[in-house]
Amino acid sequence: MPLELPGSAGASPLAPQSSHDAHGGTLRVRRLGLESQSEPLVLMHKDCPICRSEGFQSRGRIELRHGERSVLATLYQVGDGFLALDEAGLSEIAWTRLEVAEDDEIVAVHPRALESLSAVRAKLYGRRLSQQQLSTIISDITHERYSDVELAAFVAAFAGQPFDLAETAALTDAMVSAGERLAWTAELVADKHSIGGLPGNRTTPLVVAIVAAAGLTIPKTSSRAITSPAGTADVMETMTSVDIDLGLMREVVDSTGGCLAWGGSVRLSPADDIIIRIERALDVDCEAQLVASVISKKVAAGSTHVLLDIPVGPTAKVRSAEAGEALAANLVAVGERFGLKVSPFISDGSQPIGRGLGPALEARDVLKVLRNDPDAPEDLRSKAVSLAGRLLSFVLGRDEAEMLEQAADLLRSGAALEKFMAICTAQGGFREPPVAPLQSIVTASHNGRIASIDNRLLARAAKLAGAPAAKSAGLVLHVSLGDQVLAGDPLFTLHGEAPGELEYALAFVSANSTIIGISNQ
Amino acid sequence: MPLELPGSAGASPLAPQSSHDAHGGTLRVRRLGLESQSEPLVLMHKDCPICRSEGFQSRGRIELRHGERSVLATLYQVGDGFLALDEAGLSEIAWTRLEVAEDDEIVAVHPRALESLSAVRAKLYGRRLSQQQLSTIISDITHERYSDVELAAFVAAFAGQPFDLAETAALTDAMVSAGERLAWTAELVADKHSIGGLPGNRTTPLVVAIVAAAGLTIPKTSSRAITSPAGTADVMETMTSVDIDLGLMREVVDSTGGCLAWGGSVRLSPADDIIIRIERALDVDCEAQLVASVISKKVAAGSTHVLLDIPVGPTAKVRSAEAGEALAANLVAVGERFGLKVSPFISDGSQPIGRGLGPALEARDVLKVLRNDPDAPEDLRSKAVSLAGRLLSFVLGRDEAEMLEQAADLLRSGAALEKFMAICTAQGGFREPPVAPLQSIVTASHNGRIASIDNRLLARAAKLAGAPAAKSAGLVLHVSLGDQVLAGDPLFTLHGEAPGELEYALAFVSANSTIIGISNQ
Repeated sequence: MPLELPGSAGASPLAPQSSHDAHGGTLRVRRLGLESQSEPLVLMHKDCPICRSEGFQSRGRIELRHGERSVLATLYQVGDGFLALDEAGLSEIAWTRLEVAEDDEIVAVHPRALESLSAVRAKLYGRRLSQQQLSTIISDITHERYSDVELAAFVAAFAGQPFDLAETAALTDAMVSAGERLAWTAELVADKHSIGGLPGNRTTPLVVAIVAAAGLTIPKTSSRAITSPAGTADVMETMTSVDIDLGLMREVVDSTGGCLAWGGSVRLSPADDIIIRIERALDVDCEAQLVASVISKKVAAGSTHVLLDIPVGPTAKVRSAEAGEALAANLVAVGERFGLKVSPFISDGSQPIGRGLGPALEARDVLKVLRNDPDAPEDLRSKAVSLAGRLLSFVLGRDEAEMLEQAADLLRSGAALEKFMAICTAQGGFREPPVAPLQSIVTASHNGRIASIDNRLLARAAKLAGAPAAKSAGLVLHVSLGDQVLAGDPLFTLHGEAPGELEYALAFVSANSTIIGISNQ
Repeated sequence: MPLELPGSAGASPLAPQSSHDAHGGTLRVRRLGLESQSEPLVLMHKDCPICRSEGFQSRGRIELRHGERSVLATLYQVGDGFLALDEAGLSEIAWTRLEVAEDDEIVAVHPRALESLSAVRAKLYGRRLSQQQLSTIISDITHERYSDVELAAFVAAFAGQPFDLAETAALTDAMVSAGERLAWTAELVADKHSIGGLPGNRTTPLVVAIVAAAGLTIPKTSSRAITSPAGTADVMETMTSVDIDLGLMREVVDSTGGCLAWGGSVRLSPADDIIIRIERALDVDCEAQLVASVISKKVAAGSTHVLLDIPVGPTAKVRSAEAGEALAANLVAVGERFGLKVSPFISDGSQPIGRGLGPALEARDVLKVLRNDPDAPEDLRSKAVSLAGRLLSFVLGRDEAEMLEQAADLLRSGAALEKFMAICTAQGGFREPPVAPLQSIVTASHNGRIASIDNRLLARAAKLAGAPAAKSAGLVLHVSLGDQVLAGDPLFTLHGEAPGELEYALAFVSANSTIIGISNQ
């Protein structure tokens, strides 16, 4: 049947959807138990008649449908012995999203081209994107429509190309719109955030405990690690449940004033966790994405005041005071567009804060500070008090010295510990963080003074030891800048759950002598 | 056992390799028949003891070893019923590279970090790369050490960031060094290349046939399609074997003076085909990569003179004469560094050349020209004669008008056809290109004049119809710019092998009325 092609001004006589729906073939589903994160995968026999009739290619993208549900999946073809000719083996995300049961029938069709990928290409070539283009990208990512290869192009395009304020605000808006948005009865809602890049530095649980103990509302959601050995969500997960839904989060905040939840599980700005997984695989961060991620999470969480910790140091994420101030200005300006007050706090990022690096090891530092343990890391206690005092002063409009005093009192008196335990109990119960079965001490080769600590190499050693996936893995630092050491003195202890990982971290440490620099004086 | 960390000046007491080798576990291999192109994949049971003891995570990267062979693979974990606890299911590329047989034992260990990825990140942030950094990237890509996600970041970084001449030359050098390099007895070795972007335009088989018939040496290697419905290798594959090894390629050139081989199978600049697969998935091209790809293939092929066709038009790859000249200058300059003489040929890229789009349909146009068929597309014949005449004049230093006459004579006399058949026979035998089982005609909706043809939309329609994977799929154009048409006149015919693909191409055509613009006069 000939199809009439209209002139430039003509309307389309055929809707693509209707033609498109007319084809495809049915397959019986099998659950593979295959973990593929946000990219749905489907395995089919290479001689499957539908692959032949539809012209599906291995590693091509196909659309799977079950009733009203559909997913975009990447196809892999396999040989004999794994699947029958009419079977489709589904990865976990495909299985869940299609809401199928074993032996259900699904339909496989050619997907329509994802128009938002044109916008990703435009950004890759340095063009500005509109609110509409950014919304479509974020919506497609949120609905798991991007393959990992496409996500990698998105991350690379957004990391490598400049973003102006309007675009960053539009990206923020798109990320807020893609998820849930909370509202609280309190007029003032406090929040804090660290832009990261400094190992350890686990002040968030302490600040939340102190500020909630002071009677303020602070519904804190945190992310998992991007390129570091632990994020606050990873650390809290060694002590309580962080994977709580919105209903439970409301109850926790109503009863305690605070919470320490994982942002992904309450689906505030849900695109973020998908993007973060690829940023982690590529070890790439992007400033516009970072600003949009922070501000969108705070706006979606219903916060009114955010204190922003920006550690600056030669091996921190932010290398200079100027870069820190530029980032702060960007965050303040984007926050303003959403009625969110942002107070930047430029802090010392020359060495790790606290002693532990890794989920459980950082949790142990936090507990020591809350419990007023004489062995508690003083740098972590002091920084947490400074942040909490500043946040109380910022939200309440009160004198900062007075608020610092109050923050220190709440910690000393045990009120902060009590509040922290109340939050953990409300989130599902408190447990002590686990201890790693394998440990190995790294010592100084000669007498001298600790002249430098490379945050990035140290974080990498902790990650090679297994953090953050292995909860008890990481390392404990025994020295600070300026300390005098003798040959044989312990510098840090590597902790691991798997011998292979621990050995590999040790090999990395021995090959990178600049992790901790010891001057010969 | 404590490990001594040396001071900044100290040497490493432990070699990473030795420590690293001490761990890992053995698995029995199973061949999955899983097609995963250049990314080795391994499937393991999620409760596999080695995953547990080593801390391997689904979608993590692991190193597999078998004797002296090793591959970097992406791990997927699956549930019960597909693999035993001690089995590793391998994709085809992993199976081939490890040189294993069913039930062989392999070792799985944590891989060392791929240092060249730091250079990809540096490029992503706009920094210049050194020869050493580029060589390491290309070597790792050639040895299939990059996952697809990492390849996507590479493609995005190189597409989005500026490249200077020195860097482009260094990338070219790295690509030459990663593969084979040919030498010929002839002092003068001719070559031609089109930078593409114009559908059809299948002049290469004609130019090779004419120039070889004139007695010159022209050992032509071509790539497969990147973002177009067909590359020269795809077209030639419908008529003969293009997947020939270096030995056979030498024999073909020795006996006929020319050849029409796929560049990937002779491993000239082998990184190219891996990169092209990801560029195609993302629909992204990169100029530095394009220059390095073209020049490296010509240098590796041992060419001395290359004629470069650069089609320029509003919907071609190169949009303006200025852009075409800038690209030409870049190609000439990089070629010069390798002693390769490059002659640019800026041509009309305002509409497709020839009538067919897609491997077999373009092959049919080529055969009609060679056979002096009265129905042969005149634009294709005339452009091929111009290119061949110019190339003969460029290589031999002879008068261009005289050489144009000779080129036309060689075609008219049947000498070019005879040479083409001799090349096909030497490559494994000639066959007629296949005809698609499904065809659908698209007609004009009203009377008027053909005012515009959108190369990109037309190429996309041909690809949706199945080209280049479905060899006989694509489309045949029935009109040219300026033609008068009546309502109901055929504009083009879509060809397909699968009903789903053909229907989808039709839907795309009906939704995109600007593919062929008909003015109302």
